[in-house]
Amino acid sequence: MDLVTALERVVPADRVLDDPDVVESYLQDHAEWAEYGQAVAVVRPRATEEVRAVVAFAAEHRVPIVPRGAGTGLSGGANAVDGCILLSLEAMNAVLEINDDERLAVVRPGVVNDDLRAACAARGLWYPPDPASAPWSTIGGNVATNAGGLCCVKYGVTRDYVLALEVVTGRGDVVRLGRRTAKGVAGYDLCGLMVGSEGTLGVITEITVRLRPKRAPERTIAGYFDSMVAAGEAVRAVSGSGVVPSALELVDRHCLEAVDAWKNMGLSTEANVVLLARSDTPGEDEAETILRCFRESGATWAALSADEQEAEALFDARRLAYPALERLGLVLTEDVCVPRAQVPEMLARIEKTAATHDTLIANIAHAGDGNLHPLLITPIGDEDARRRAQAAFEDIIADALELGGTVTGEHGVGLLKRGGLRREVSGPVLDLHRAIKNALDPLGILNPGKIFV
Amino acid sequence: MDLVTALERVVPADRVLDDPDVVESYLQDHAEWAEYGQAVAVVRPRATEEVRAVVAFAAEHRVPIVPRGAGTGLSGGANAVDGCILLSLEAMNAVLEINDDERLAVVRPGVVNDDLRAACAARGLWYPPDPASAPWSTIGGNVATNAGGLCCVKYGVTRDYVLALEVVTGRGDVVRLGRRTAKGVAGYDLCGLMVGSEGTLGVITEITVRLRPKRAPERTIAGYFDSMVAAGEAVRAVSGSGVVPSALELVDRHCLEAVDAWKNMGLSTEANVVLLARSDTPGEDEAETILRCFRESGATWAALSADEQEAEALFDARRLAYPALERLGLVLTEDVCVPRAQVPEMLARIEKTAATHDTLIANIAHAGDGNLHPLLITPIGDEDARRRAQAAFEDIIADALELGGTVTGEHGVGLLKRGGLRREVSGPVLDLHRAIKNALDPLGILNPGKIFV
Repeated sequence: MDLVTALERVVPADRVLDDPDVVESYLQDHAEWAEYGQAVAVVRPRATEEVRAVVAFAAEHRVPIVPRGAGTGLSGGANAVDGCILLSLEAMNAVLEINDDERLAVVRPGVVNDDLRAACAARGLWYPPDPASAPWSTIGGNVATNAGGLCCVKYGVTRDYVLALEVVTGRGDVVRLGRRTAKGVAGYDLCGLMVGSEGTLGVITEITVRLRPKRAPERTIAGYFDSMVAAGEAVRAVSGSGVVPSALELVDRHCLEAVDAWKNMGLSTEANVVLLARSDTPGEDEAETILRCFRESGATWAALSADEQEAEALFDARRLAYPALERLGLVLTEDVCVPRAQVPEMLARIEKTAATHDTLIANIAHAGDGNLHPLLITPIGDEDARRRAQAAFEDIIADALELGGTVTGEHGVGLLKRGGLRREVSGPVLDLHRAIKNALDPLGILNPGKIFV
Repeated sequence: MDLVTALERVVPADRVLDDPDVVESYLQDHAEWAEYGQAVAVVRPRATEEVRAVVAFAAEHRVPIVPRGAGTGLSGGANAVDGCILLSLEAMNAVLEINDDERLAVVRPGVVNDDLRAACAARGLWYPPDPASAPWSTIGGNVATNAGGLCCVKYGVTRDYVLALEVVTGRGDVVRLGRRTAKGVAGYDLCGLMVGSEGTLGVITEITVRLRPKRAPERTIAGYFDSMVAAGEAVRAVSGSGVVPSALELVDRHCLEAVDAWKNMGLSTEANVVLLARSDTPGEDEAETILRCFRESGATWAALSADEQEAEALFDARRLAYPALERLGLVLTEDVCVPRAQVPEMLARIEKTAATHDTLIANIAHAGDGNLHPLLITPIGDEDARRRAQAAFEDIIADALELGGTVTGEHGVGLLKRGGLRREVSGPVLDLHRAIKNALDPLGILNPGKIFV
């Protein structure tokens, strides 16, 4: 009996997809350059018990399982390994509970981020984590990668909102980790350990997230700067002012030019660097303080907008940068994070790296977090450009580490940053990773080869 | 050669204390009822390398190590086990760095919480976690137990502020976990796993904490209520209003009576239950909203104070409750946490438990978090009262679990809540604890017998 037939005996047959074209569409996430293998089948379970059955099946047959949500990851973490079962949680997409009194929601992993946010908003509640993939990415994937986003600078990352998880471990147990209460210290933080473990320790089947009350309307502050140094000074001035903006984004000249070439917005003739900040603390003071910081740091133009539409237009340059750059070639999204004060130095080094390796590198950055997204663009099919870009990629990682940073701020290690992780942490820390992996997935069936080998 | 002489060869001799009276003073923390054993010696290292040497020594000689800070714990987590080395980190008490640009501080574990807070305040920065033990407890102990406090309701617990740790693991390695950047997802969250592990996975030798900008001055709102039901309604009304107070504390009739009997403040003639809230969002709205919630929920008296001294006086009833109750006998501090909406029901059950077991139980509660501190008072030397109180303690744990709560909100499992943890989590989850412990401390030398056996 082949594996697919055997699989159809442990879960309802309609959960198992093995049409080659269908399987093909599930083989990789959005990480350019990351390798991927061939899968035996895609399984789309509809209940925790079905996930447990697939994990037990995989343990019995020693078949690797690669769990995945919407496949919007940028590090190859959800890419197929040869001979694996791709376990797609997309069909487990129910919002099970939104609780006003406890300010929490309970969802299945396949719920799309924006759908949860909309369901919460309808009840006057707010789920803050807002990765750029929010219209498509799932909460399960967000938890598995500890996704970030724009609001992190004030409101933290996915981990800060995960209260409890139901997980099928590599040992085949269905366990409930965490709690429904606001606080709790009963035992090790195994729930937190699962967050960001990229499917290597367990398959997440239910998620309880903390919510916040709906916040006050945001005001947007935009600033145009001639130089990266001036923009960096503005970021530092905001931080030093004691104000914590609800977003603080940077868009560089290359992005502005690409957007202009596509949409003719005329941005690149006015600015070399754009900073976009938001403020959601009631009262006027905070936004005015940010505006003053921009102006005193040498902004060539700066303004404040409370009009939602006008504000959204200001954020268009950031949103359009990625598709505008994709018109120029393959875009590899980098994700280093450096200490805030090192942002200007890191951006200067990236500029130098671009010149050294003759590679177009544009920059979007969560500047308030020190989280940079250098975008390395290579013309499709140009292998030499690809090799140069690979060298640039390695230099960016080395520079981030030298400046006290990390190789991945919010996208995860997956496949692309395994080498970076080995450079970032010591041998004994990698050994701890292996020991933890072995403790929770002794057969090594869950997403093998991801994060570390 | 005896163990003490041998120890004096691996660390400078003055670090090793074996005078019986001195050792005796280190044998237990502040948990009434928790058993403790006899230690071989106290070692007070002054550097990470000395900690590493003691752990290596303990591994070689298979001697248990019990790490401790100031010994202010309330669960027996720092209590000696027979034949152990008590490793006191109190002499490693340097503040190594306070960084304005990155808003972080780096400290050794023996730094006292209030000392760090003062050092930060002098720089216009704020370290929020504020356990009641803040004047004495150390950051190392706070991290090991994931300490909470009054401000958690708005600002989270110790875990939310720990960016990085230097740890000596049970494997004898000195490892750096976490990062200095605002975000980072490189590898498993081993830093978070260490937080709250109560010294069973590693000895913490350096801590990097996230700081906040100094906050706006707080305003205090006090409310007197006739009944627990009315006070519970007020807590729910505040939560439902969308306001997040920076503290929301409850003090019950038994506490008020004990304070009156001692200080003659006349509180218990005016109120059966006191709620104390704080607001630190700039602008008047938030405090006014809380005041309105108190009044509309049936407060017999409610008022708002922006005067720091007047506000502190209002908090005196809470602060004085513990010493006032200690005048009546031994005080065992309970620490259950229930879903917010269950606070009135849980308090009603505690009242019934007190009657059933003829035990005086007073209540202080972080009401906004659902974290209750029932205080069980037994006359010194009254063994029968002690047995009745033990039965009451078990009932409180059972009730908290039945209401969807946890056996420990912020004090930790230590020795007193081991039975509670076994009731709270499933067998497979306890197995995961054992597997993790074995991965990080394969010889089982670090604080054995704490949290779980």
